[in-house]
Amino acid sequence: MSNPMHNININNNNNNGSQLANMELLTLDNPVFCCYLFWATVLVAKMLLMSLLTALQRFRYKLLGLVPLAVRRKVFPNEEDLFFKNIEVQFDDPHVERVRRAHRNDMENILPYFIMALIYVCTNPNPLVACNLFRVAAIARIVHTLVYAVYPVPQPSRILAFATMMLITFYMAAVVALRTLRFI
Amino acid sequence: MSNPMHNININNNNNNGSQLANMELLTLDNPVFCCYLFWATVLVAKMLLMSLLTALQRFRYKLLGLVPLAVRRKVFPNEEDLFFKNIEVQFDDPHVERVRRAHRNDMENILPYFIMALIYVCTNPNPLVACNLFRVAAIARIVHTLVYAVYPVPQPSRILAFATMMLITFYMAAVVALRTLRFI
Amino acid sequence: MSNPMHNININNNNNNGSQLANMELLTLDNPVFCCYLFWATVLVAKMLLMSLLTALQRFRYKLLGLVPLAVRRKVFPNEEDLFFKNIEVQFDDPHVERVRRAHRNDMENILPYFIMALIYVCTNPNPLVACNLFRVAAIARIVHTLVYAVYPVPQPSRILAFATMMLITFYMAAVVALRTLRFI
Repeated sequence: MSNPMHNININNNNNNGSQLANMELLTLDNPVFCCYLFWATVLVAKMLLMSLLTALQRFRYKLLGLVPLAVRRKVFPNEEDLFFKNIEVQFDDPHVERVRRAHRNDMENILPYFIMALIYVCTNPNPLVACNLFRVAAIARIVHTLVYAVYPVPQPSRILAFATMMLITFYMAAVVALRTLRFI
Repeated sequence: MSNPMHNININNNNNNGSQLANMELLTLDNPVFCCYLFWATVLVAKMLLMSLLTALQRFRYKLLGLVPLAVRRKVFPNEEDLFFKNIEVQFDDPHVERVRRAHRNDMENILPYFIMALIYVCTNPNPLVACNLFRVAAIARIVHTLVYAVYPVPQPSRILAFATMMLITFYMAAVVALRTLRFI
Repeated sequence: MSNPMHNININNNNNNGSQLANMELLTLDNPVFCCYLFWATVLVAKMLLMSLLTALQRFRYKLLGLVPLAVRRKVFPNEEDLFFKNIEVQFDDPHVERVRRAHRNDMENILPYFIMALIYVCTNPNPLVACNLFRVAAIARIVHTLVYAVYPVPQPSRILAFATMMLITFYMAAVVALRTLRFI
């Protein structure tokens, strides 16, 4: 992707390497953008797996073969989802609701981060700083999911994982706002 | 938009058509990007209509002129939304909650898909494959909304519509992750 | 950022200013894109502050030093969040739920707007119209948060703020759909 011949070729045509960089920021020629692509993909996959984890929690006693418990624990929000006639619609299973809160927290934090990080790439940041921010933010959210939805762990762990991505997003917001302040 | 003169002109300057393609992926010159734009627009409009559908459900007995029922069925979450003094705040109307679950499911699936599909366009995919994926994914989610929130239908239909977009998103994630794996 | 030398230089190479504009839409050379970046950053920061506002509401009686009330009002959704042994998990505190509804409304409206506005920038809109739409939409959502979650105000205010961004998003959707209709 990062063909040195290609870069030389374009430099000959334009005589202006730094302006050129602006034009190529959102292409696979930009390592920072590639790093963003990879870790954003990881986080998208993680978010989609939350839906499957919710479904797994709804079915889990069934999967363990504990049918009598399943009748009591099956917690589907819609009437057409009930496979046994003698179950009622439930909304308050603690395991399902925990996964759903984790999923909602993902939406509240990861989706704005996607836009913020994409915008941050457009400001041509220092590659070393940007790539490491992407890595730390993605790993922090994976830890957040593990300690929140998969295996609950006492409190400081989840708050630290939550704060890591939030602080990174605020840092990116500050960088972008300072660069674009005169277009207010 | 896709001016052949323009393409020839640039090719003369750069002598490298495939690298050039990278630079133009996120413009209206790229038919794959235009196809993404159109179907993303359709899905954004569909998501916004969910808010109006929720409001419609909150008011629907009022709209039918059944004022006595309206007093019992009006289900607004905030006290300042109550237009009659003798109604209480309610949170458990099944029709409203069904639309809200459908809306939340949209957010959980469509918003990560927007980012994933945009990233996928940046990897310069096969136009025929990419455009058909965009079309199928968008239509699947419209079907999902119809069978979930507008007219509830027995179960396999909703799961199939849900799985279609999820599998497409996972496919895109796999393509992008393989392309950008060395930037981990 | 907008170096006139650079623009002349490229014009010499391409002999086609309007096509060039397409190539540069998603760079800091495009004032419309910079305006989008600034106001999107403001809205991302506003959304993240909603998480902190929710946390503040959960702790607010604690912060005021009213410990006996805190025991009754502390409303954490997870058992590991309880710092006193004699409190039960609660989900129905009206102040916390109001902030959470405002946050969910943000996700329902601002996140699709981010994608829609980014797509709209790609269609090379009139700079004056586009920049003012970004400004009005962002300010409307800030007003929405103030009258919904910070200081509840009687009804027409919140609906007007909500409708402003929704109409702007629908307008952008219409513009983009008309431009890309032949790629259906």
